[in-house]
Amino acid sequence: MKNDKITTRDVDFAAWYTDVVKAAHLADYSSVKGCTIFEANGYALWERIQSILDGMFKEAGHQNVYMPVFIPESLLKKEGELINGFAPECAWITEGGNNKLEERLAFRPTSETLFSDYYSKTVKTYRDLPKLYNQWCSVVRWEKETRPFLRSREFLWQEGHTVHSTSDEAEMETHRMLDIYKRFFEEYLAIPVITGRKTEKEKFAGAEYTLTIEALMQNGISLQSGTSHYFGQKFSKAYDIKFINKNNEFEYCYQTSWGVSNRMIGALIMTHSDDRGLVLPPKIAPKQVVIVPIKNEENLISVCEKINESLLSKGITSYIDYSDKSAGFKFAEAEVNGIPVRIEVGPRDLANNEVTIVRRDTSEREVIKLNDVVNKTINDLDKMQEDMYNKALNNLKERTYDATTLEEVKDIMENKPGFVNAYWCGSEECELKMKEIKGTKSRCIVESKEYEHEKCIVCNKNAKHKVVWGIQY
Amino acid sequence: MKNDKITTRDVDFAAWYTDVVKAAHLADYSSVKGCTIFEANGYALWERIQSILDGMFKEAGHQNVYMPVFIPESLLKKEGELINGFAPECAWITEGGNNKLEERLAFRPTSETLFSDYYSKTVKTYRDLPKLYNQWCSVVRWEKETRPFLRSREFLWQEGHTVHSTSDEAEMETHRMLDIYKRFFEEYLAIPVITGRKTEKEKFAGAEYTLTIEALMQNGISLQSGTSHYFGQKFSKAYDIKFINKNNEFEYCYQTSWGVSNRMIGALIMTHSDDRGLVLPPKIAPKQVVIVPIKNEENLISVCEKINESLLSKGITSYIDYSDKSAGFKFAEAEVNGIPVRIEVGPRDLANNEVTIVRRDTSEREVIKLNDVVNKTINDLDKMQEDMYNKALNNLKERTYDATTLEEVKDIMENKPGFVNAYWCGSEECELKMKEIKGTKSRCIVESKEYEHEKCIVCNKNAKHKVVWGIQY
Repeated sequence: MKNDKITTRDVDFAAWYTDVVKAAHLADYSSVKGCTIFEANGYALWERIQSILDGMFKEAGHQNVYMPVFIPESLLKKEGELINGFAPECAWITEGGNNKLEERLAFRPTSETLFSDYYSKTVKTYRDLPKLYNQWCSVVRWEKETRPFLRSREFLWQEGHTVHSTSDEAEMETHRMLDIYKRFFEEYLAIPVITGRKTEKEKFAGAEYTLTIEALMQNGISLQSGTSHYFGQKFSKAYDIKFINKNNEFEYCYQTSWGVSNRMIGALIMTHSDDRGLVLPPKIAPKQVVIVPIKNEENLISVCEKINESLLSKGITSYIDYSDKSAGFKFAEAEVNGIPVRIEVGPRDLANNEVTIVRRDTSEREVIKLNDVVNKTINDLDKMQEDMYNKALNNLKERTYDATTLEEVKDIMENKPGFVNAYWCGSEECELKMKEIKGTKSRCIVESKEYEHEKCIVCNKNAKHKVVWGIQY
Repeated sequence: MKNDKITTRDVDFAAWYTDVVKAAHLADYSSVKGCTIFEANGYALWERIQSILDGMFKEAGHQNVYMPVFIPESLLKKEGELINGFAPECAWITEGGNNKLEERLAFRPTSETLFSDYYSKTVKTYRDLPKLYNQWCSVVRWEKETRPFLRSREFLWQEGHTVHSTSDEAEMETHRMLDIYKRFFEEYLAIPVITGRKTEKEKFAGAEYTLTIEALMQNGISLQSGTSHYFGQKFSKAYDIKFINKNNEFEYCYQTSWGVSNRMIGALIMTHSDDRGLVLPPKIAPKQVVIVPIKNEENLISVCEKINESLLSKGITSYIDYSDKSAGFKFAEAEVNGIPVRIEVGPRDLANNEVTIVRRDTSEREVIKLNDVVNKTINDLDKMQEDMYNKALNNLKERTYDATTLEEVKDIMENKPGFVNAYWCGSEECELKMKEIKGTKSRCIVESKEYEHEKCIVCNKNAKHKVVWGIQY
């Protein structure tokens, strides 16, 4: 059923996106410029994401902490590259309790500085290491253009900050966290991602290198979805984080940081949703099944309640829509909100001991025996998770290209954009040349070596890297 | 065992408190004035509190949302009493991304304004009501003196904000949430509380009235621990939140808000802990049982692992201390960190098929048969929860007094402070007179009526209220 509050994707993808966000009550604009309100449905999705990821972090040995939201300017400035990267985006607190502050405070844009300051006081010997800390919080970056979940002045995220006694261990951590992100995206969000290293230009300010997971939206635009940074000793030297190593000598620590944000909700929408509203992978949907009595009759409701109990007892998050709206209205509402499976209980079906089950992603309707409803629902949820991943994977495969000339890239990006594999010499000049083609940027370096035959797609000099390129959100 | 990092309570209660906070790695001071770092142990406690309370809220029908952290000054000013109450405590953002802002933004000190602004846009008819929303976030109030968990510039809390179509329903909600807080304090934190209404002077800025739960610390100082506010139509008139009622007329909504903060961790410490460190009620302890192999021997460790598995399978959060420290060190560490039950597995006991079990609150040691370890642990945890509540209740009873003269109050507050029941005429003058006695303030009004014989403890005029008074943190 077409939802008349939602622009269709072929007419205007950007308008479709914000229409879905609003129609599914995920977020609303606030009276505060550049900040969005997480409405109940949107925040429930964030809680679901948070609880799964948090479990994965804890299983990997991480603990949560909470650092102050304020960073004194002098503390922020200790690591030069970081402040250069973030100063233009900081929000500054300059007054507190009717007094002008002696030193202005930044609202945390990211917390490397605070964690480093804390580690410098608490890490003494190799026995204290590693420290594997994470925090869930909001951060502020003074963006000019904002879009719900994709770019806003305040956003919710997690930031892991770890400190190690050897570079090997820290580098392993950087890769391990990237793997966790990849696994979470693929297994739970049903979003296939590619992984690689950011170029010097695109890496995190202050990092030795940045690893990234990159996803491809259904319209072929790519989205940087999670990053994991290796800092080496950059921060430990700037913030004086020393430990006594096993040889009884002072040594600077090795650090990492890694983060994903509420942007994941944007990725979910743009990967899976359709012109009728939100489509959610069952494993991440806060509510997996809605049961709708077609009429407000006692015998129908009692069947709904039995089904609901059976599903809940199997760990499926189902609910009954008891509201006094029409059945059609309830169907439409469940549809726009992306409830994966809908079970309709009507008098005609019930006369044959049957109910109707409808999958949100395919709209497939099936009339099934009442006895089969639990098994069928479980199967549908599993199948839907798998199908949604495969559909996204097919889109990614279809939109992944090899190119050796700028004309090819231009042709791809103008007609059916996606990920383009192309070789690159490593110069920023050539990187910027690519950007002239509809803003195409390097997504990640997937291989680096001394190639014998491969040439840079821009300057035709010897290539040093194989890079995936794409137009970014 | 005395912990030499901890000042004893009889020497200096305030120093004891901060020593426990630091020794148990709950919090650390940061480089940001007035802000504390939640260390891993402290944040784990907050997560435990949060998950239980959040479950109670959701069971009661609440949903979580997230409002922006910034409040434009003009929006904050719409309700006059609120801004008068909070303006002197606000932190102000005046610069963003290298530019001076046209209007300064407050860091949320509380979010009535943002919720009201949101409700004014989204509530249309009585069918949209009630809205039962809550958010978990940090807030900032520019306090001068700060103490970890009790008073700090940034703190973590939850704030519920609900909107209703009748005053009755909103008042019921105000009371219902107070009951939930009381239940949480008594059942989980093992802290008995008294409840009542705040005086006009002590109520929340902008509220019609404020209900409160008040706890008594072991030294007799009282702590305001949670508040629930009834707003009537004050905010709905200021922020224009109208709905069409069942008679098809426009009507202003009725609102509530309610909150508890990380101050609960302070209450936990000051109610239950001792000179050896933290003591935690088992229901709130992130880790309930530590199993310590007395020596690093394979047969001991394999017994530890069997015990651990049995406990985990019963839903008890136990862990084995595998570290290469001495057994004595491990005992002391578990003690200072407040692990409720310790199981020691040593070669001598094990030769008799026995282990030793030690309760943190009483230090009771018992040698028990290996077969009994799971049952005994469960019993100890249950008993400890109950005993800790009763111990705190006894302290509260012992320190609850009736007084009819200021001399009596003075005597009580100087010698063995606590809660004092005394009648009051209702004038602010008399309230301030009480304050001259070591800062004694009204905690809450527990009864109001036209008394025949009772007189105000200060001015001796006819009393209007029975009030509990106390010295506050």
